[in-house]
Amino acid sequence: MMIKTSANLDEVFFPRNVAVIGSSPTEFYTLALLLTKMRDHLYLVNPNYKEVHGKKCYASILDVEEPVDYVIFNLPTRNVLDVARECVQKGVKVIHSFTSGFGETGLQEGIELERELISITKGKVRLLGPNCMGIYCPKSGLSFHPASTNEEGHIGVIAQSGTFAQYFVFAGRSRNVKISKMVSYGNALDLDCPDFLEYLADDPDTRVIALYVEGVKDGRLLRSALEYASSKKPVVVLKGGITEAGVRVASSHTGSLAGSGQTWSTMFKQSGVVQVDDFDALLNTAICLNGSEPPRGRGVAIVTYSGGFGVVQSDMCVKAGLEVPQFSPPVIEELRKFVPAVGTMIGNPLDAWQIFYNYGENQAGLGDVFRIVSQDNNIHSMIMQFDIIRYMLARWGVEFEKRFEIIAQRLFEGFRFARDKAGKLVVISIYLDPYADNEIERKYTLAFKKKCEAEGFPVYPTLSDAVMVVSIMYKFTELGYRRSLKKG
Amino acid sequence: MMIKTSANLDEVFFPRNVAVIGSSPTEFYTLALLLTKMRDHLYLVNPNYKEVHGKKCYASILDVEEPVDYVIFNLPTRNVLDVARECVQKGVKVIHSFTSGFGETGLQEGIELERELISITKGKVRLLGPNCMGIYCPKSGLSFHPASTNEEGHIGVIAQSGTFAQYFVFAGRSRNVKISKMVSYGNALDLDCPDFLEYLADDPDTRVIALYVEGVKDGRLLRSALEYASSKKPVVVLKGGITEAGVRVASSHTGSLAGSGQTWSTMFKQSGVVQVDDFDALLNTAICLNGSEPPRGRGVAIVTYSGGFGVVQSDMCVKAGLEVPQFSPPVIEELRKFVPAVGTMIGNPLDAWQIFYNYGENQAGLGDVFRIVSQDNNIHSMIMQFDIIRYMLARWGVEFEKRFEIIAQRLFEGFRFARDKAGKLVVISIYLDPYADNEIERKYTLAFKKKCEAEGFPVYPTLSDAVMVVSIMYKFTELGYRRSLKKG
Repeated sequence: MMIKTSANLDEVFFPRNVAVIGSSPTEFYTLALLLTKMRDHLYLVNPNYKEVHGKKCYASILDVEEPVDYVIFNLPTRNVLDVARECVQKGVKVIHSFTSGFGETGLQEGIELERELISITKGKVRLLGPNCMGIYCPKSGLSFHPASTNEEGHIGVIAQSGTFAQYFVFAGRSRNVKISKMVSYGNALDLDCPDFLEYLADDPDTRVIALYVEGVKDGRLLRSALEYASSKKPVVVLKGGITEAGVRVASSHTGSLAGSGQTWSTMFKQSGVVQVDDFDALLNTAICLNGSEPPRGRGVAIVTYSGGFGVVQSDMCVKAGLEVPQFSPPVIEELRKFVPAVGTMIGNPLDAWQIFYNYGENQAGLGDVFRIVSQDNNIHSMIMQFDIIRYMLARWGVEFEKRFEIIAQRLFEGFRFARDKAGKLVVISIYLDPYADNEIERKYTLAFKKKCEAEGFPVYPTLSDAVMVVSIMYKFTELGYRRSLKKG
Repeated sequence: MMIKTSANLDEVFFPRNVAVIGSSPTEFYTLALLLTKMRDHLYLVNPNYKEVHGKKCYASILDVEEPVDYVIFNLPTRNVLDVARECVQKGVKVIHSFTSGFGETGLQEGIELERELISITKGKVRLLGPNCMGIYCPKSGLSFHPASTNEEGHIGVIAQSGTFAQYFVFAGRSRNVKISKMVSYGNALDLDCPDFLEYLADDPDTRVIALYVEGVKDGRLLRSALEYASSKKPVVVLKGGITEAGVRVASSHTGSLAGSGQTWSTMFKQSGVVQVDDFDALLNTAICLNGSEPPRGRGVAIVTYSGGFGVVQSDMCVKAGLEVPQFSPPVIEELRKFVPAVGTMIGNPLDAWQIFYNYGENQAGLGDVFRIVSQDNNIHSMIMQFDIIRYMLARWGVEFEKRFEIIAQRLFEGFRFARDKAGKLVVISIYLDPYADNEIERKYTLAFKKKCEAEGFPVYPTLSDAVMVVSIMYKFTELGYRRSLKKG
């Protein structure tokens, strides 16, 4: 079942050099690649320019003096075939065509163009796309977006949609998402999802694989690749086109035959990968898998400053297949020692808004909550709702910074105890109204969020995101993942 | 069935004056009320101060020279009974106790305190709470949060949880949510959810009622009040405590007996109110109902700049009970006249990223899309995903502002046509990564969002929020709401 089918794709992810055909001062592959280590191995091609950003610009790929490994097409559709022939003549190894206008248009003209492109390249040069963003690989310097970071990470992304690939790039900046390799593969005339899955499965730099797929040419190949990949590392997948409307759209988006939603879900389950419902869940799960182990059970402890949110969050957990078990009597007894009885709920969820403000010397607080609760055997994950910075700012004013530093320090001691000593999944929800314009609150909230990320604790903007991620993480447990994120 | 049970609550929402017992320089009711028109009808009481914020501070309510209508308790639990007796002696009409430590603690002591408080006040003074934020009514100047605006609006909010009430206040600033009357009512020893429902049902300033409830003492009264209210205006409800865990928590939060989730859902359905799943849905629906009519049918048109999001959003719509019908042939033909065939999907969803950038004179663009598509008989709502400002900024740099102004102006012409001429629900999704720190993108995105709000078009931060709201709005259609939001 798990037979590897694809060639090694090192030549796709690690070309020695790159040429951009259709380069110009505003062309974004040019801009993106000039910002990576590829800048010194970059050839720009466009007959309309002699120079772009101070770099020589060639009229044709055939004019480049050296052999070229990897060529990016960002040019008018009508020129694609001619330039592809030149690439074959030049001995190029990989063509990536961002240029679209092929089978996905549904027009006879596009379908014929596609057929000709295949016949020109087949057996001579590997083809990525057309109609896709291509590859982002910080280690080799491949990039498709000027906003991407050059930092190397451990999340592998395979996305049939260019937008989703770009959103992972944006999240790179705002959510500290560090990528090992990312590929947006579009119409997949040659290189297809199974090839990338198998490559990332074997890639030592990739710890987690996040996949967005609309459809494939060969379902059995995909299944085999998913089984292979999921035997190596956790794979989380978003399937686009699981309803009739979605299928219709997927077909005009990437020319995919999408099949029924039920068929896909069954296949994913049988292949050992976990399916999610939307892009946020895909991103959020990848972030969590990157730094945390799946929880050993369904039991969630909720730490909040709001009774109302405690109630609603408990409902959310149960609806998502988790449990919110009452704490054991010794744990409740320990908590009663420092959580006041009035205005709180001592139990699970723990609504203990007063102790969120505890910063005094010898004063027990939130850090102790994590230390105590994480030792409860019925608790496997802890979700903390920490939306309280605005209240602290209002209450403390100029004293905020000093006091919050003490609170944060103790809190992280608690987080680390819960995760590293007690082996529990710790997830933090920090709501930040995206539309709010309180810049002071934003500043301190973002600083705290960054500290969480730096220590490897996953942070989510809403409570439902946090609950959803824990429930998805538990699905990996059900599949047998644990211990350095290997199966078994 | 629809018999009104409550007294008129004008004395609760429109007191002539207010006293805060437990006032201090940092006490938040004092701060909040000093910022409203109530400031000139405000008495501060606390034996420890002679003056607070330059205002005379009385040692006791009995020392106030004038009659006092409305008294707020923010004082130690142990003093509540004595001060309540003084209020009765003074002839106060309403006591609102923010102070907690009663039945919700589950402790015998708290339950007894509650019983005594009832016996002191019963038949003599109306009681709001204890354990609640109380009332926010910009028209009378009642307020419980210094961040609340003084602008009067048309959304009525009844929330058993103080946090949710506060979140509506925060949303007031960031989401342009203008409130008619809001009440957080906590343990509900006297005034309870049914009283507020009936009052807001009859309130001419309230167009929509958003309700968060954990439980009630008398289910039949609640049902009758819900029926009465929903016969007058749309009511959207979030029930906290619908799972076993949630019920347990609700009981310790506000001392409510919550009942099973299924029972509640059936009751809501039969009472003509629409139940939602979380706080965001409650807020988002209230925003939409405030300015828009429910859609006449299930058909949604999706306008996006991303094929991938088009696919996923179509799936979301169908899963939420909506439909994404293909446009009629004449509509597609019209669109083909100005939407290029390459790199797009001409149909529903419409992925037409190129025309998002159209600003040229005589150049058709997004505004025309709304004009054309809204005339399709199978389309009842239009969702536009407008997350493209970051791309425009990257593409246009300093030219952005001038070009975007033209685009926005034409877009709003299209929005207005679709809503006002064609009678379609128009909903806009503007993603703004809450954690992103691109301040330029934030600035322009917020400006565009504010323009949407100013024109009464509902805006949501994520695609799934937008889809969810349209599906909830359609539930109101199924209940028979239409035409100035009265039942039809």
